[in-house]
Amino acid sequence: MKHISSRDNPAVKALAKLAGTAGKRGSPVLLDGVHLCQAWLQHHGAPDQAIFDVERLSQPDIAALAAAVPDAHCLALDSRLMQSLASVESGQGVAFLVTPPSPEMPVEVDENCVLFDRIQDPGNVGTLLRTCAAAGVKRVFLATGTAAAWSAKVLRSGQGAHFALAIHEHIDLTALLPRLRVPLVATALDGARNLYEGRLPARCAWVFGHEGQGVDPVLLDAASHKVCIPHDMAAVESLNVGAAAAICLFEQRRQALANALL
Amino acid sequence: MKHISSRDNPAVKALAKLAGTAGKRGSPVLLDGVHLCQAWLQHHGAPDQAIFDVERLSQPDIAALAAAVPDAHCLALDSRLMQSLASVESGQGVAFLVTPPSPEMPVEVDENCVLFDRIQDPGNVGTLLRTCAAAGVKRVFLATGTAAAWSAKVLRSGQGAHFALAIHEHIDLTALLPRLRVPLVATALDGARNLYEGRLPARCAWVFGHEGQGVDPVLLDAASHKVCIPHDMAAVESLNVGAAAAICLFEQRRQALANALL
Repeated sequence: MKHISSRDNPAVKALAKLAGTAGKRGSPVLLDGVHLCQAWLQHHGAPDQAIFDVERLSQPDIAALAAAVPDAHCLALDSRLMQSLASVESGQGVAFLVTPPSPEMPVEVDENCVLFDRIQDPGNVGTLLRTCAAAGVKRVFLATGTAAAWSAKVLRSGQGAHFALAIHEHIDLTALLPRLRVPLVATALDGARNLYEGRLPARCAWVFGHEGQGVDPVLLDAASHKVCIPHDMAAVESLNVGAAAAICLFEQRRQALANALL
Repeated sequence: MKHISSRDNPAVKALAKLAGTAGKRGSPVLLDGVHLCQAWLQHHGAPDQAIFDVERLSQPDIAALAAAVPDAHCLALDSRLMQSLASVESGQGVAFLVTPPSPEMPVEVDENCVLFDRIQDPGNVGTLLRTCAAAGVKRVFLATGTAAAWSAKVLRSGQGAHFALAIHEHIDLTALLPRLRVPLVATALDGARNLYEGRLPARCAWVFGHEGQGVDPVLLDAASHKVCIPHDMAAVESLNVGAAAAICLFEQRRQALANALL
């Protein structure tokens, strides 16, 4: 494995530049840490490049990652160089340079899916991706104005969910509506029925909205189902969008599991 | 209202010092922004001190807050001074200095409650407090090692939930167990039953654990119920702790609502 100890090495310079701008459309990104790199390997195979902290190559989980990537794609960096690339202070000694998949836009959407309507907070977006994947959702559409899915913070809170999902970014959700062959379901306060009354569609397009403003009124109008989560409104006005999505997606999953058992 | 324009004013210096150390045990804290200040007023009445951006006192929501606090407790600060106290870049022109309530430890716990077992991330702790309040929980116990409930980040993501809850901090959860008169319920992977099979207790003590390590084995052993959320394990290993808690607490709420309807 090639070993680099100079900050002026062109490969290190390119990586450092990338670490600062990750998340830009179409550009490669750095996956930071053992868990994300393992998840990438499992779903997509070898990365464009694997970068290791030379002092931690003997650590078993890192050695296993190094063994799984062709040597020509591996670089060993001095610890201080590696540290300068890490997105968190406690770098884990490994990062993969990868090109995020760009899934083809389906002509018709007939599966369970989730629409992210300008969700701002990277932690919320990452958690929501993780919840979607956990609920068995395979495809998500992120409106323009949503935090960049492949940024370091979203990747970190996604915990590998990115690799189990087809993620469509920079989407005009209104323009997407004619492609939907499943009902559009939105969470709302006005004119919404209790989430727990009646049956949810087995497959639908859920839309979850902006932290402050909620779902875009145009999308709300287009929704065939509006549901509200019956919470203690005297205590707090609303739920966090990630919590609300978890409750909705897993209520749908609960109903689906219950029906399969019948 | 007293107007201050000097950074060297003792009151401003004291506030600036506090803004940097908020969240320390027993000390007063700064509530930042219109929503938190409104929620404090609604639940606890006037703050120890209310601080306003002098240029925004004519804004209706801020004027309403100023009118609700006795003038002797109000300070108007020059914008740049106010900005230096704000915990986020976009300060909202108002902050309350308050002393967090310290609820008395109950001798016996016989109500629905939640135990936070060393949850590290302030955003997770705040979201979890908000979810607890929304689910109708009134009392929470935060283990030593959990992010400080009254820190600026946790307050921000709690969105007012703090004022609807009795929050016990720095708790030894193991020592709390003998006081519990309700069953202890933990989320777990091994030896756990499906959350959706069978009935959950109407009242219990939920314990949610550390983001990486999960629930402390001692608490897991002590739990009379261990439940798991049936998620797509091929997609992601686990759920975010806030998402998992939302699913559990609202499944309990769904069951309670369904039984009340019978």
